[in-house]
Parts: sequence; structure tokens; C-alpha cells
Amino acid sequence: MTSLSEPRLYETIHRRRDVRAQFTGDPIPTEALERVLGAAHAAPSVGLSQPWDFIVVQDRAIRQAFHDHVQAERSVFAASLEGARAALFRDIKVEGVLDSTLSVVVTYDAERGSPDVLGRHAIADAGLYSVCLAIENLWLAATAEGLGVGWASFYREDFVAELIGLPRGIRPVAWLCLGPVSHLEPRPDLERYGWRSRMALADVVHHDRW
Amino acid sequence: MTSLSEPRLYETIHRRRDVRAQFTGDPIPTEALERVLGAAHAAPSVGLSQPWDFIVVQDRAIRQAFHDHVQAERSVFAASLEGARAALFRDIKVEGVLDSTLSVVVTYDAERGSPDVLGRHAIADAGLYSVCLAIENLWLAATAEGLGVGWASFYREDFVAELIGLPRGIRPVAWLCLGPVSHLEPRPDLERYGWRSRMALADVVHHDRW
Repeated sequence: MTSLSEPRLYETIHRRRDVRAQFTGDPIPTEALERVLGAAHAAPSVGLSQPWDFIVVQDRAIRQAFHDHVQAERSVFAASLEGARAALFRDIKVEGVLDSTLSVVVTYDAERGSPDVLGRHAIADAGLYSVCLAIENLWLAATAEGLGVGWASFYREDFVAELIGLPRGIRPVAWLCLGPVSHLEPRPDLERYGWRSRMALADVVHHDRW
Repeated sequence: MTSLSEPRLYETIHRRRDVRAQFTGDPIPTEALERVLGAAHAAPSVGLSQPWDFIVVQDRAIRQAFHDHVQAERSVFAASLEGARAALFRDIKVEGVLDSTLSVVVTYDAERGSPDVLGRHAIADAGLYSVCLAIENLWLAATAEGLGVGWASFYREDFVAELIGLPRGIRPVAWLCLGPVSHLEPRPDLERYGWRSRMALADVVHHDRW
């Protein structure tokens, strides 16, 4: 069953990019968005808690406010850099909030399935980990649909919670820009700009002990 | 390019299970393990920090020690349950550490790429999120290879760090059991046992605001 499916999954995994500048702003077919969110919702979760929610943000005013906030946080980070790093960072685009078709905010609800979440008693962050597994499913499904995803992380959680009306206790985990793209770059932006390089697999694999 | 690849990716996403009882213990082909770890290492990461490491544990003594620890933690959780929940939990298998072929411990190194990790200044957990994206890539690739993955989370991080010699500052994020399986169940174990049900997608999707 699996030998045929391997290249397709691997192709998607290796082709996936964190998109900033390639969004076209074209519409996303409703069925495609449904499949992408369905893929996220099919992720594994600790104790089958499914502690995620997906807020699909199309409203332009909300996205504009988030965009402005991100630009302010970009300046905060820029001010922490010096010399060559500061110069490098100047040209790096950190979000495509207004260029992309819409945003999906992914959140974490620690109360879902409580108090007896099976598999979380010893590791409080396990629920947060589940949300991230859903995010990667979403990302791969979007890539397979010909859509790009860009994770914007220059923001304060409190700001986002207020902006989209999250109830107390619901934590924003990711602000994802989503939409059709002109193309996916063969190399990550940060590698293309010389910010950081990809490491060899051998550098991160150990046997039996660290 | 994508219409052909969609069903294959989605099939893997929806067929994936958190495996406990179906491991055969058969060997994993070296090339398959390499592809699975390569898929994990191809995950997105904040600031291209790639803050993950993969410790492939085959040593039987290490796995036995972890297994014993998990059983003790299972008892801790069991003691917190009452009545029907306690009875339900009695039959639920929480790990396949010794039945599976090997384990992969996935860790997080907050220092990698520091001090100027692009995209992490406002969200300290962003690096941890990256590690989880890699874990989901690993899980899907393994599924495509005909392997099962079981995330064992009944453990204390300190115990694992000591057991496999993690340097100070390296945090274990997941202990994954990996290996060939007799089959993948069509439904999650916790649903089959009546512990928890899967929610409808519509219950976790919101528009513009919560």
C-alpha cells in the first residue's frame, strides 16, 4: 500500500516553505480550505483531547491591525541586532498578512478534556505539543493544495487574544497566513538571505545516548 | 502538480494512528529510518533554528528502564481516577516501548541559533513549537513507510534526560516508539475504548473572531 504513496508525501514535506513574498491574494476554494482544516483536525493529540481551535480570519480590518502590530514587533527585534546581522535583517520580509488570502489563527485550550487528560499528568506542555502537530498537518495539506503558509510570529499573545476575542484561558499558538502562491522557493528564505544555513541530518542524529 | 498528490498525503494523514499494541518488533530498513528522520529534519523552524535532535534508542536496557518508569507513572495517573474512569483506564495500554523495534527521543535545544533567533523574541515557546512540527513530519513519514509510531508521554523529563545523557539545557519533548506494525486500527484507541470521542470539525472552526 505504501510504496506508491511515499514519494508524494515526501515531495510535499520537502517542497513545503514558510512563505512571505509569494502570495497572490487569489481566492481559496471552499472545499480546499475544508480539506486543509480537516487535515489539521485529524492530528494526534494527547489523550485524544483535540485541544485546538481554528479561527479563519478574512476581515481586512483585523488583518490590518495584526499587520501593524507585527511591523512594530519587527522594529523591536531589529533594535536588538548589531552590525552585519542588523544589515541582513533589514531586507528580510517577516510576514505576508495582507498579501495572503486569509489568516488562520490556531489556539490551545488547556481545559478541553480536563481534568483527566490521559498522558498529560507528568508533562504540562503535552497539550501544546498536540496543537503544533495539527499545525504541521495543516501546512502540508495546504502545500499539497498548491497553497502557501507563512507563520507570522512577531507578535504578543495578549494582543492577538484581544484582537480576535479569545476567551480567557485560550492561548494563541500560531498566526498562519494562507493562500495561493506564485511559486514555492526551492530554498528557505533565511538560507537565501544568508541568515542561517540548514544543518546536515547527521549533525542532529544520535544513537542510544546523546 | 498537486491534484495527483492530494489523496496520498490525505490518506496518510487520516490513516496515521498513535500505536500501542500493534508493533511486531521486526527490523526497520536502514534507508526507511533515514527517510523518516530526514522528513523530520525538513520541518519548518522558527528562524531556521532547527532546534531538534533525534536520539535513536535501540539499547534494550535503556528501553527496559524507560518502560519500568512509564509503568510507575501509569500507576500515578491511575490513582488520580475514580469510578468508571478508573475502570476504563485499567484496560488501556499506554505504551509499546518493548514491543516496538526502537525508540526515537526528540529533544529541544533553546540555545541553537541564539541569541538572535528570528521570530522568537516575543514568543519564547516558538522553538518548542518547531520541534513538534518535526515530530509530525516523522510520524507521517513513518506511516507512509508502513511503520507505526506511539508517543509515550507517561514520564518525567528529568528521568529521560538522565537516562540518555542529555546535556543540561536540552529538553526531551517526545519519546516515540517506532517500528513495523501488524496493522493500523481504523479508529483511535481512546475512541475504541470509550475514553473520549473525536469532535466534529465544525466544533473547532470559527470565523474572524472566536
